Amino acid sequence: MILGIDVGGTSVKFGLVTPEGEIQNATRFMTADWVNGIGFVESMKLEIGNFLKQYPIVKGVGIGWPGLVSLDRTKVILLPNIPSVVNVPIVEILRSEFPHIHFKIENDAKCAALGEYYFGENKRMQTFILLALGTGVGSGVMMNGKLFIGGRGNGTEVGHMLTTRGKSLENQVGINHLIAYTHEQLALDVAKKSSLHTIAELSPKVIADHAAQGDALALAVWADIGTIIGESLVNIVRVMDLNNILLGGGISGAFDYFVPNLKKAMLEHLPTYYTDDMYIGKATLENDAGLLGAAGLIMEAI
Amino acid sequence: MILGIDVGGTSVKFGLVTPEGEIQNATRFMTADWVNGIGFVESMKLEIGNFLKQYPIVKGVGIGWPGLVSLDRTKVILLPNIPSVVNVPIVEILRSEFPHIHFKIENDAKCAALGEYYFGENKRMQTFILLALGTGVGSGVMMNGKLFIGGRGNGTEVGHMLTTRGKSLENQVGINHLIAYTHEQLALDVAKKSSLHTIAELSPKVIADHAAQGDALALAVWADIGTIIGESLVNIVRVMDLNNILLGGGISGAFDYFVPNLKKAMLEHLPTYYTDDMYIGKATLENDAGLLGAAGLIMEAI
Repeated sequence: MILGIDVGGTSVKFGLVTPEGEIQNATRFMTADWVNGIGFVESMKLEIGNFLKQYPIVKGVGIGWPGLVSLDRTKVILLPNIPSVVNVPIVEILRSEFPHIHFKIENDAKCAALGEYYFGENKRMQTFILLALGTGVGSGVMMNGKLFIGGRGNGTEVGHMLTTRGKSLENQVGINHLIAYTHEQLALDVAKKSSLHTIAELSPKVIADHAAQGDALALAVWADIGTIIGESLVNIVRVMDLNNILLGGGISGAFDYFVPNLKKAMLEHLPTYYTDDMYIGKATLENDAGLLGAAGLIMEAI
Repeated sequence: MILGIDVGGTSVKFGLVTPEGEIQNATRFMTADWVNGIGFVESMKLEIGNFLKQYPIVKGVGIGWPGLVSLDRTKVILLPNIPSVVNVPIVEILRSEFPHIHFKIENDAKCAALGEYYFGENKRMQTFILLALGTGVGSGVMMNGKLFIGGRGNGTEVGHMLTTRGKSLENQVGINHLIAYTHEQLALDVAKKSSLHTIAELSPKVIADHAAQGDALALAVWADIGTIIGESLVNIVRVMDLNNILLGGGISGAFDYFVPNLKKAMLEHLPTYYTDDMYIGKATLENDAGLLGAAGLIMEAI
């Protein structure tokens, strides 16, 4: 049994994960409570200790972090939300505190790819990118059954790639930017044809729902988002040469509305070598991806 | 001793390469003669046989190709210049003809990175990208001492990445496009201030020479080229996380004029994690890179 830990800016999730990917006894702690209490690292040590005492069946602990990780995977080196953990030798601290337990850390988007690899519906797909489209845009790549981390350990930070429009991918298709862009389009719709004018608070789900009802403005927003993501995927594919693409995160619910233009952009800019056997599908673990992926870190170790 | 073979659209270069990277008895054949004669594959077999008979000290043959190579490195799968070799099991054919010799094939831009790795001034630099800036724009990446080929074998095709201006990198900074762009700028220079107006035939060297003499238009052309390459490198670095960049090929002679803006673009769009220890330098093998890199394919085998 593995303890998966998914660290986030808001909460830290714990869950026991079976080798089949079942999550048991999931629980969450508020990140701010840890930071403002006895300190993040001390709190993590304490709660891991509590879990291990309660579940002595646990042999390994995998921890996913929303930041950059050192090449040797011993510490977090950039984590704006929790600065007190940066450069702390967290793996060493945990190993010396719990010497019989395996510990591993990884970036959370890379964990999500591991999660799909070990526990998703496309289990053991050898080479793919998981694109996580949420407030932020992250990704993880499995390459021939191994997690790709890049030369210095923090590759596949695709949300910060520049698009053909000169801005970063995240600054165009991240949820807040998507909503801002929809507001801009609504302001241009002076005839108020779009049914979205009646909505007090926009969200990806609402914009997708209106697209489903045929609202032209909503459909155009998603078409544009699809083009931007597709063009970025062209660049990723040219560098990485992979042709399995899994789309996850908060906007992937609008899959049917942005994927046609995404594909169109890829077909326009890539030769058939890259596109002939291309698979573009939804990620399958959604909210559990982080926790399961953190557990996935330990799958080969125990 | 290794026989390196560098296949090009115009000529096929042969050279004996010592383990120290010295090229001996270099010779070249015209590609068209092979294609129009007894056929490319038959000609290659014949000339390899002649070389091996003359230099029985040769233990291995590495061949670089200007096209896409199958993931198992047994054949060329896309090579517009020499279609008759596509999908021919060239490695198997050569191995059965010369059973005591090691044969390996690779894409030529990837060979050039291997050449720098084994024989360049930055010998054994573990992780770097070699960007080859010529008529085409190619690249090869060494990652922790291994050639990176991507998930399906043909990654790092960076010349076809889309830039912030919506066109491919190659279609903006490739030599022909660079010259066309300079002509466009000259057409806009109605006061004819630029000394480049007196030049009958533009070339990267001429444009660099005029930049060296302070010609404002030439300097502006290189500055713009630098920005475009720098922005593409931002995307490459975000995906690959490497911070050693070697620039080679026909326009690298203008290094001093385009690299300042290249660096500026990278500093503007990348956090210090990526840029603090960044090295940007010239490739060191230039015209020999292809041949030496082809020989590099065999360095670990014999």
